[in-house]
Amino acid sequence: MPERLLIIGGDAAGMSAATNARRHLGPDRLEILAFERGNFTSYSACGIPYYVGDVVGDVDRLIARTPEEFRDRSAIEVRIGHEVTEIDLDGRAVRVRDLATGVETREGFDQLVLATGAVPKRPQLPGSDARGIYGIQVLDDGTAVRDVLAKEEPKHAVIVGGGYIGLEMAEAFKLRGLQVSVVDKHEQPMSTLDPDMGALVTKGLCDLGIDVYLNEAVTSFDTDSGKVCGVVTGQRTLPADIVVLGLGATPNRELADKAGIPVGPSGGVVVDRRMRTKAEGVWAAGDCTEKYHRISRRAVAIALGTHANKEGRIAGINIGGGYATFPGVVGTAVTKVCGVEVARTGLRESEATEAGFEHLSVIVESTTRAGYYPGASPIKIKLVVEKRSGKLLGAQIVGREEAAKRIDALATALWNEMTVDEMLNLDLSYAPPYSPVWDPILIAARKAWSQVQETLSEC
Amino acid sequence: MPERLLIIGGDAAGMSAATNARRHLGPDRLEILAFERGNFTSYSACGIPYYVGDVVGDVDRLIARTPEEFRDRSAIEVRIGHEVTEIDLDGRAVRVRDLATGVETREGFDQLVLATGAVPKRPQLPGSDARGIYGIQVLDDGTAVRDVLAKEEPKHAVIVGGGYIGLEMAEAFKLRGLQVSVVDKHEQPMSTLDPDMGALVTKGLCDLGIDVYLNEAVTSFDTDSGKVCGVVTGQRTLPADIVVLGLGATPNRELADKAGIPVGPSGGVVVDRRMRTKAEGVWAAGDCTEKYHRISRRAVAIALGTHANKEGRIAGINIGGGYATFPGVVGTAVTKVCGVEVARTGLRESEATEAGFEHLSVIVESTTRAGYYPGASPIKIKLVVEKRSGKLLGAQIVGREEAAKRIDALATALWNEMTVDEMLNLDLSYAPPYSPVWDPILIAARKAWSQVQETLSEC
Repeated sequence: MPERLLIIGGDAAGMSAATNARRHLGPDRLEILAFERGNFTSYSACGIPYYVGDVVGDVDRLIARTPEEFRDRSAIEVRIGHEVTEIDLDGRAVRVRDLATGVETREGFDQLVLATGAVPKRPQLPGSDARGIYGIQVLDDGTAVRDVLAKEEPKHAVIVGGGYIGLEMAEAFKLRGLQVSVVDKHEQPMSTLDPDMGALVTKGLCDLGIDVYLNEAVTSFDTDSGKVCGVVTGQRTLPADIVVLGLGATPNRELADKAGIPVGPSGGVVVDRRMRTKAEGVWAAGDCTEKYHRISRRAVAIALGTHANKEGRIAGINIGGGYATFPGVVGTAVTKVCGVEVARTGLRESEATEAGFEHLSVIVESTTRAGYYPGASPIKIKLVVEKRSGKLLGAQIVGREEAAKRIDALATALWNEMTVDEMLNLDLSYAPPYSPVWDPILIAARKAWSQVQETLSEC
Repeated sequence: MPERLLIIGGDAAGMSAATNARRHLGPDRLEILAFERGNFTSYSACGIPYYVGDVVGDVDRLIARTPEEFRDRSAIEVRIGHEVTEIDLDGRAVRVRDLATGVETREGFDQLVLATGAVPKRPQLPGSDARGIYGIQVLDDGTAVRDVLAKEEPKHAVIVGGGYIGLEMAEAFKLRGLQVSVVDKHEQPMSTLDPDMGALVTKGLCDLGIDVYLNEAVTSFDTDSGKVCGVVTGQRTLPADIVVLGLGATPNRELADKAGIPVGPSGGVVVDRRMRTKAEGVWAAGDCTEKYHRISRRAVAIALGTHANKEGRIAGINIGGGYATFPGVVGTAVTKVCGVEVARTGLRESEATEAGFEHLSVIVESTTRAGYYPGASPIKIKLVVEKRSGKLLGAQIVGREEAAKRIDALATALWNEMTVDEMLNLDLSYAPPYSPVWDPILIAARKAWSQVQETLSEC
């Protein structure tokens, strides 16, 4: 009789775990059953803003694999619209509710994967539970917002919080012809960047006709018959037919907490390198787990599809009897908002300080192609570097087309703990359509190395 | 009285050495005099095809700094149209000919920088010295070809050899409305790639109406009154009003040879890590030197502006009393030909074999953006990997827009001697406008790691 693997959560992490376990163990060895609260499996949550903005016309295009495909190709059974409400560790079973009928059942397991994802942060403010206020986390959120656009024809959209998803949604609404405002309590949006780099994002947003209100905290939401109609800050009330929360997300820890599966200070489920939780036979992967940050050497919660896929794969390999470990993250992220490309990796200044590093920073301005080559567009690169050692601690890029993806070379340098002295002679590619003869990354490393040397000579 | 630094060659390497030496030592400590055989200083040789193709309209745009600017800003004297014909090491002097007047003078030096660049390979065949056959190395070559286009209105261009510069010139001629043929004796053009990847370049060329003749060696050139009119191969005679040699370039070693300054088996001047030649007080930098290849651990001659700039900088810092070393190269190169983006780093298969590695290769096809995101274009990545260790040995990319510059992350991984097992979990950036959720590099690493594991289990 086969062992039974239950998966809680049918997106990237859970279904990667399922398919990778299946690759190692056939149905005669392992039965796999996945529960997904929503209506979709293996979709691109990162694609939601593009679906809302009608850059992608059909929701099916965001779906990598349907429940039918999992069944037919991998002998994995998926029950959508089914929510796991409780894990009974001692009884080796979960309680599952069919959301359509309300019927609850009990399903036994030998192995269990927690892939419950993350939940958007929602401020506890007057009116914050009103209709028309959306967090964007699962594909059902995307279809709901797109339905509102089609049926209610909202005119005014307000984005609360200038994180990645918030700004991507701002662009989506702009593309759909709405008047769009972004309200952020921080000095600049995109607070994963230092404020000086975030200011470049603000400029890009303003250039495209998005109203940006900074240093403004939302204090309440005006409502009309239970539906949002305004966003109130200390300084003003913004009319709002639809509101999106772009305040980030936190690991969905509820089931783990109830079952007594340990959660770390980051808020994510604690896992070892093989993605095992502290509970025997229970694994976790994706946005619900905490990750080791290789530069700060701390556990962090970062909700990102790329990590979810990797962690799910690793959990699946280990469940299947193989061996794989997750080496951690360096905090790389990238987005594109209204033509402004933004990327970061490692630690920004405040994070570097918080982790105990003495550091210095440099910013260089360059171009994405040789200055004389048509289409050369501006790129600004900021490096955060440890004093004395000259080790790279973090990097940020803001620019126009062909700028942001360059962060990958910096993320790889960071991963390998390179110093800016080593980096400035890296054999990066050069031809006029791709960079000046000194690649912007090399220029930044060269400038940072000069600064490090100056600091050393002052000691 | 200041020391005297002479520079032979006024482009990237020589003038970087000059300006970096000047940064450390003022005119009271160091007199700097540079000789340049041609008419331009500090120009982008890599920009020549774009000037010929009229993508760049004005030759001045290719010039980073003129002799006047060197004089006024850096107190560096440059004599253009002056060729150094001999180095007298014992007498600490060079012989210089003013090419306009033929007058020869002798100039003493304390320190000397050889930055004589490279010379295009020219086959010794009947007719190969005819007018109308151009190597493309210095900016004067570019202005000469552009003059021919303007004055002689050639109809048929033939490129002999499918290297980078040859293919870039093929595109330039195509842009100018000529009928263009490329003749290459190899199985595929761009022989710095493996043939399977080179075939993708051929397809791109053919799609754009360039005639490509492969496995065809040129046997002679037909001439008419001393001017080329045809390119003869074993199979055909191609009409030719203008011919460009794209057979690569070799270090310009003539002066070094005559002076007894050692040249290595690669053909380049031998230098130590600080860019010192074997002769006291004589430095060398740029295309004329040989470079340490970090993966093959051999000396190689690679003519490339990015190395020339780095080496020149390092020579200048050391001449100025500072300390800097050149860590070598990994063989990164990139180009764009008629919309086909091509990049490589490290060793291709035949080079890996030649260096003694047992290796395997994988090729993956992916897209430059999420499949559902508009503008996703194809990208093929090939990795060459050492068997057993799984260490990356080389990578090649062929694709359309936004493909090639991704080689930098691979070059950085290679530089740090990463295994594909380590690479497959690299924290590379992901958002739908930039890559699928599994970045193509990670997909390639994952596939390569599977292959390595299979090979291991066969042992």
